[in-house]
Amino acid sequence: MTKYYRVLIDCKDEKGLVYKISKTFYDFGLNVENNREFVDAQNGKFFMRSEVSGKFDPDALKKELENYLPNKANIRLIEPRPKRIVLMATKESHCLGDILIRHEANELEAEILGVISNYDSLRSLVEKFDIPYVCVSHEGLQRAEHEAKILEALEQFGDIDYIVLAKYMRILTPEFVSAYEERIINIHHSFLPAFIGANPYKQAYDRGVKIIGATAHFVNNNLDEGPIIAQDTIPINHTMDWKQMQRAGRDVEKIVLSKALKLALEDKIFVYANKTVIFD
Amino acid sequence: MTKYYRVLIDCKDEKGLVYKISKTFYDFGLNVENNREFVDAQNGKFFMRSEVSGKFDPDALKKELENYLPNKANIRLIEPRPKRIVLMATKESHCLGDILIRHEANELEAEILGVISNYDSLRSLVEKFDIPYVCVSHEGLQRAEHEAKILEALEQFGDIDYIVLAKYMRILTPEFVSAYEERIINIHHSFLPAFIGANPYKQAYDRGVKIIGATAHFVNNNLDEGPIIAQDTIPINHTMDWKQMQRAGRDVEKIVLSKALKLALEDKIFVYANKTVIFD
Amino acid sequence: MTKYYRVLIDCKDEKGLVYKISKTFYDFGLNVENNREFVDAQNGKFFMRSEVSGKFDPDALKKELENYLPNKANIRLIEPRPKRIVLMATKESHCLGDILIRHEANELEAEILGVISNYDSLRSLVEKFDIPYVCVSHEGLQRAEHEAKILEALEQFGDIDYIVLAKYMRILTPEFVSAYEERIINIHHSFLPAFIGANPYKQAYDRGVKIIGATAHFVNNNLDEGPIIAQDTIPINHTMDWKQMQRAGRDVEKIVLSKALKLALEDKIFVYANKTVIFD
Amino acid sequence: MTKYYRVLIDCKDEKGLVYKISKTFYDFGLNVENNREFVDAQNGKFFMRSEVSGKFDPDALKKELENYLPNKANIRLIEPRPKRIVLMATKESHCLGDILIRHEANELEAEILGVISNYDSLRSLVEKFDIPYVCVSHEGLQRAEHEAKILEALEQFGDIDYIVLAKYMRILTPEFVSAYEERIINIHHSFLPAFIGANPYKQAYDRGVKIIGATAHFVNNNLDEGPIIAQDTIPINHTMDWKQMQRAGRDVEKIVLSKALKLALEDKIFVYANKTVIFD
Repeated sequence: MTKYYRVLIDCKDEKGLVYKISKTFYDFGLNVENNREFVDAQNGKFFMRSEVSGKFDPDALKKELENYLPNKANIRLIEPRPKRIVLMATKESHCLGDILIRHEANELEAEILGVISNYDSLRSLVEKFDIPYVCVSHEGLQRAEHEAKILEALEQFGDIDYIVLAKYMRILTPEFVSAYEERIINIHHSFLPAFIGANPYKQAYDRGVKIIGATAHFVNNNLDEGPIIAQDTIPINHTMDWKQMQRAGRDVEKIVLSKALKLALEDKIFVYANKTVIFD
Repeated sequence: MTKYYRVLIDCKDEKGLVYKISKTFYDFGLNVENNREFVDAQNGKFFMRSEVSGKFDPDALKKELENYLPNKANIRLIEPRPKRIVLMATKESHCLGDILIRHEANELEAEILGVISNYDSLRSLVEKFDIPYVCVSHEGLQRAEHEAKILEALEQFGDIDYIVLAKYMRILTPEFVSAYEERIINIHHSFLPAFIGANPYKQAYDRGVKIIGATAHFVNNNLDEGPIIAQDTIPINHTMDWKQMQRAGRDVEKIVLSKALKLALEDKIFVYANKTVIFD
Repeated sequence: MTKYYRVLIDCKDEKGLVYKISKTFYDFGLNVENNREFVDAQNGKFFMRSEVSGKFDPDALKKELENYLPNKANIRLIEPRPKRIVLMATKESHCLGDILIRHEANELEAEILGVISNYDSLRSLVEKFDIPYVCVSHEGLQRAEHEAKILEALEQFGDIDYIVLAKYMRILTPEFVSAYEERIINIHHSFLPAFIGANPYKQAYDRGVKIIGATAHFVNNNLDEGPIIAQDTIPINHTMDWKQMQRAGRDVEKIVLSKALKLALEDKIFVYANKTVIFD
Repeated sequence: MTKYYRVLIDCKDEKGLVYKISKTFYDFGLNVENNREFVDAQNGKFFMRSEVSGKFDPDALKKELENYLPNKANIRLIEPRPKRIVLMATKESHCLGDILIRHEANELEAEILGVISNYDSLRSLVEKFDIPYVCVSHEGLQRAEHEAKILEALEQFGDIDYIVLAKYMRILTPEFVSAYEERIINIHHSFLPAFIGANPYKQAYDRGVKIIGATAHFVNNNLDEGPIIAQDTIPINHTMDWKQMQRAGRDVEKIVLSKALKLALEDKIFVYANKTVIFD
């Protein structure tokens, strides 16, 4: 039976890697439908992503690649399937709604297991789409207690590939983040690294900038400092107060987050040195 | 004889300002060819810029406006003429060259009095255009000494409307800046407030951003914190090292700086609260 | 009781219009919270949009403005209220979904009376939001018959301010269009006037362009030739076939259509000479 | 001695091409510093561009690649050197000036042999840079006569890699074009295919568009229909008449033309099916 796989390789760069990998594919009789590679010369790192198809034994392919490639090469053979994702949000619906509509139209390679929020405001929207909604209020709880409850809620969804913070407005602790390393995608409502922290639109208004933007990134232990996946900006002008900037910015936020999510679902992102290599 | 003036007014906002100003124009028999106003409701500030023409006495018009408008209204009647500007640069030619070419094509309402640089590298380019080039080397000099020499060079050009830092890579002291308040325009090679300070492209590379940009701003006493006039961004990706970002960024830098300069020359900028109101 | 109105005026340009209008507002004791004007010097046309508030008699205000302004001045006093809109779509959900989500979040000054489609595919999405869905299949019908049925469906919704063609993929006859002149907003999936007609993404692919775009416009009697309200573009490259362009284009389409709709709902558009003046 | 070459290959697609090519590079002991490939699945075409270095015999490498690759594979081994280019212009200086400044700053891998214009207006600008300026007036001449004189002028420059039409405003005949097939780069002042032909800004103004753009393309026998290399757009609004659009458009024109020229000089463009594959 014909199999279809994504092969993602990253390793130390050395001469002949493309030759060795493409030879292996050739020897296995694979069709290579798409091929992207990148060498970070400065850091001596090699990245490659191929979409291959054919009648072959994935384990044998992986083994052969391991033989050929440098020690510690990171080789992933991924069979496309809907990734299992959980969305988290607070009160705003634009990012969440955008993902729900795309999901409904089968645009996303994903199964949405559920939505977790610290408020109940978005329940009605989410349940329209027959998706479980879990409200975990933070009121009266310490951060650790609240996160423990969220972790509990997450565990009930079983295996999770990605957690998408679709305007989830509370800070996550390093403990929480480390449980889902490189698997939490956040949308920050500014073009990072400008305006880290709370209310970036207010900060942007106060600074008098002429562009605003949004940044989708993996979450790591430092607030708003994780690897950036996608960014975009729009022009603004002096007539806009920060609430108008916020409204205008929503369109950028949702497009940038959905773009980043799509890249993750399609295994098009490599992370290293707190940066991303994107084969879009 | 028909006169053509730009009228710029900013004052405390109150009811009826547009009425009072337009009545005054009407009473003086002026044609209003262009009219822009803006109310910053939050700060209670009113801004208006009109292009008027007619046979009238500007002093009388100003007096009448003063009678009508709130105390301390800032009223400027400006007769368009080429502004007297001095360019400052270090070694890179892209911003300087862009201004020289525009000037040569009569695109700018400006007379370029001269170019001051701390190196001699750009002399050959500048002198092609029959523009005086003054090299004030900083070598062996303390900052204060160097600036004293630059101030001296500037003084020899007589009255100066604007100093344009077209990639002048040295920091100016508060003393220097205060001598030309709101008259020094700088291009910073990042979308401020991201990447303040030295080598923003290197900073951008290290942070792994997906967009880079440029910011033209008036210089004030805090490095890279003056009122922003214009900004723009371009998308980049993981394949670019910081030198490639720098090359790509040059196009944004020169366009943004020339745009800001044009706005200044055409009296389209109001500055207040460390921000700008731009009537473009 | 304090009233809040939008005043839209367009008329032949002549000296003193701003004075006369602002005097009238002043005499009526109105607060002018926002004021935009534009003179098309070439065509001698004047446009003004003001947001005014105060305790006043709108009829008296209109009468006074009529006295002052040139004959045939078009004066509209509009009290903000949710506009009554009907959406039409075919099979694609991205534009429709975007409007539904914004509506749900109270971002739109609109009441969605219903959705009409020539297919049943979008029923499940629309009915989630408790909005009536009317399927008027075109199968086996001549164009005139089909449109007659749609007109009938429209009439059942009562008064309609705007019809939004959110990827409604059938051509409307001049008869239909003339029944809703300047009240039908369409999204065309190219940057008009490039790629008029069917499958613009296929046309764009065949032509080998490096940007694609979308155009929101009022519909008139000539296919894709009505007054343009909003446009935007995104970069593409040789790796994208036309289906990938189509997918990428959807984000531009929905943002551009929603932007145009918002402008219409907030009475920010003047139409003349097959063009628009937008006070955004 | 270490050689540095660009290897450009395009041929019918078949299984194993990357393997065969990378094997050949490996067998020759080459360092592959940059590698880009693209398969147009629809048309069964394969494209690859590699930057290789090593101590090797280019003829032997080419022969080996020919043995391995499909019949009629187009294999080019290009040793980087300044391309020999001629610029043509009419009266506007922005595109020409931009190229001159970049050339002066050694940004372009090119030797500018000279500038040909049908007017004398740009002579003073060009001669500042010590570049030969040839005025070939079209006055009193039939098109064929005029072109004959231009061809004569071109011949005096010897071998020419590219002719750059930097706002050369006269139409070239198919005879002229065929003498420099895929070697003439033009900047058209609209986002093609919108507004083909004369005065696109006037056309854009009349149509009431909200974006304008520019297109750099190879010239072929049909006016403005050659393969597109680069395009970009900027937003405009109703306040701009066509002369203002023209002024605003100049910045896009020059950036887009210089970008396209740079791609050509660095051998990053493949042309086929009246389209381009760009490895930027």
